[in-house]
Amino acid sequence: MIQPFDDIYFMKKALQEAEAAYDKGEVPVGAIIVHKNQIIARAHNLTETLTDVTAHAEMQAFTAAADFLGGKYLKDCVLYVTLEPCQMCAGASYWAQIDTIVYGASELERGFVNLKTTLHPKTKVISGVLEKECSQLLKRFFVEKRNLN
Amino acid sequence: MIQPFDDIYFMKKALQEAEAAYDKGEVPVGAIIVHKNQIIARAHNLTETLTDVTAHAEMQAFTAAADFLGGKYLKDCVLYVTLEPCQMCAGASYWAQIDTIVYGASELERGFVNLKTTLHPKTKVISGVLEKECSQLLKRFFVEKRNLN
Repeated sequence: MIQPFDDIYFMKKALQEAEAAYDKGEVPVGAIIVHKNQIIARAHNLTETLTDVTAHAEMQAFTAAADFLGGKYLKDCVLYVTLEPCQMCAGASYWAQIDTIVYGASELERGFVNLKTTLHPKTKVISGVLEKECSQLLKRFFVEKRNLN
Repeated sequence: MIQPFDDIYFMKKALQEAEAAYDKGEVPVGAIIVHKNQIIARAHNLTETLTDVTAHAEMQAFTAAADFLGGKYLKDCVLYVTLEPCQMCAGASYWAQIDTIVYGASELERGFVNLKTTLHPKTKVISGVLEKECSQLLKRFFVEKRNLN
């Protein structure tokens, strides 16, 4: 059976958001939220642009998705994010009771897995989707930044 | 020596914010951020009003304080919050590198202490300031809410 809307399809959309962050000189992380196969929120990291540590891609996506749905709980929603969420974003997903988190690249130091952030009991996690593409964009950003300084 | 601006003085200001949340039917949590004895941000929980789980008092205060200071790091800043921060808010404080977190009531189930959220190594924590007043307002809210339902 053809599956036009699979995890790879949606992660590519999150990667497009990460590229938009890259173009702005932001750490390139992108996120989308999907509700019943429909993209209801798109966001990318804007911490530098907004001088605001809370402006991670996921946080903005949660806010936008809740606004779209008219309720604060993201039931039947899947977060696709190019980098493993941090404690703040995983903590927000707990409150949002999101159904599934799908991420690309791992973040061993500051990601929620190794820091053992508690997710909502309903939340499922899928990791490593387009991992190579997601981490390559991040590596490119940090190499270029290092060369500029 | 007279200390007009001590932790109790500032926690009273955070409690005023919690009361403003209470008046709106929000879980009554208030926060302020103090920079060199000046209050640079005041906020209260607005999760219901904004239908947004990310609208905790602390998150809004971080955003407002960074905006005031013109930089995303909250150096020399103290967060006063009436309830122990959750994983999301403690996670945000990690990124903001806040100097000190002072909280009133403890949150044994969803607070960052028992959930072991990693704070920034620079961040100091003071707990239990006006604990009774902070927790009484929360208890009153939940008792009244239960009686209404």
